Amino acid sequence: MTDNLSSNIKVLAFDIFGTVVDWYGSIAREVDAMHLGVDGDKFALAWRAGYVPAMQRVMLGELGWTLIDDLHRMILDQMLADFKITNLSEAQKRHLNKVWHRLDPWPDSVAGLQRMKSAFTICTLSNGNIGLLTNMAKHAGLPWDCILSAEVFKKYKPDPATYLGVSQVFDVPPEQVMLVAAHQSDLDAARACGLRTAYIERPLEYGSKQMKDVSADSNNTFHAGSLIELADQLGC
Amino acid sequence: MTDNLSSNIKVLAFDIFGTVVDWYGSIAREVDAMHLGVDGDKFALAWRAGYVPAMQRVMLGELGWTLIDDLHRMILDQMLADFKITNLSEAQKRHLNKVWHRLDPWPDSVAGLQRMKSAFTICTLSNGNIGLLTNMAKHAGLPWDCILSAEVFKKYKPDPATYLGVSQVFDVPPEQVMLVAAHQSDLDAARACGLRTAYIERPLEYGSKQMKDVSADSNNTFHAGSLIELADQLGC
Repeated sequence: MTDNLSSNIKVLAFDIFGTVVDWYGSIAREVDAMHLGVDGDKFALAWRAGYVPAMQRVMLGELGWTLIDDLHRMILDQMLADFKITNLSEAQKRHLNKVWHRLDPWPDSVAGLQRMKSAFTICTLSNGNIGLLTNMAKHAGLPWDCILSAEVFKKYKPDPATYLGVSQVFDVPPEQVMLVAAHQSDLDAARACGLRTAYIERPLEYGSKQMKDVSADSNNTFHAGSLIELADQLGC
Repeated sequence: MTDNLSSNIKVLAFDIFGTVVDWYGSIAREVDAMHLGVDGDKFALAWRAGYVPAMQRVMLGELGWTLIDDLHRMILDQMLADFKITNLSEAQKRHLNKVWHRLDPWPDSVAGLQRMKSAFTICTLSNGNIGLLTNMAKHAGLPWDCILSAEVFKKYKPDPATYLGVSQVFDVPPEQVMLVAAHQSDLDAARACGLRTAYIERPLEYGSKQMKDVSADSNNTFHAGSLIELADQLGC
């Protein structure tokens, strides 16, 4: 990882769910604390598993443009039926749905972002909606320069409009933007648009019972074990 | 200004040019320092005067959706002809056009915003584009939770879609959003959408040669001499 590579990069765009925050652990903990008679681990995994199919309904045109908050609620309502949870009020359901606004960061996230903010413009690039990402940043202390979201571009990742949108917003060529993510498919799509890519290892994204493969792909510009390690590699 | 009024407010949305940053002084200083043989004061005022007519060309449909960076450049090109400035390279013109990304804050802005950020979600609501507002925040140290812009809503203020857009983004009713601005027309339009309003006195917005009327309008929820004074009134 040479100085040349990093010196040309101006903007770091971060995937959020799993890369910067621990959705699995945060949701499992909150659901367990609610004593609903369900396993927080299974509940978290099922909720997340509903996410891609729900987005696909929008991408296929079956649903109009929909915020992730609303997709999360559609999935939640189905899950409450599946898990036979019948004793929640509407206010309790709304509060539970916004657990996605209260996800905790990985232990290295805040310190790593603070360091990278000193040398780069750091922004989110998430399918999460703007309000969700803003509330999460206040909850978790994430020091974004700017919150970019599928909501700005009215397309979800991996649509090229999202990756190229970052380059257009900041008026820099795609190769001066780097996507930072814990998901190879997201990085592949960004690289196809000309962005640089950094893979972050998050072996516990789905919990300790199903460890994730975090092996390196040489197509990425950087590969790091944490956001602090990425800041080290970027020399900031 | 009672506790009741401020306790119900969740989001403070700030107008930027003139309210948080001193466009007049910043541009006049930079133009004077370029030794172009023109009066920085006149140049700054003429540039800003071209802004509303340029936006109106978009609002009337004569131009498609256009970022403020591009409107600023159209006005600048006309001004360079009017002021008979012929010796700037394309790179110098691009750099000068981005002076709007390098505007300095009023002396109270950063401290006032830091205090309000502890109690509210603070965001921009400006016709400036996202990249401009993000670069300005890094330059000036403005600690936004979120950058909202006409670019997100594809409408300029005073279109209701911008004010109501803030309430929709944060999933709160309009009366839980307050627009903070140094311009009564902006506040009037926000109030018509159900937002609360705070007027900030910026008598020097157009320089000391043409002091601005900053008298109070009782329709506003708050009236303050600075962002620090507003933080005082909001009890944060």
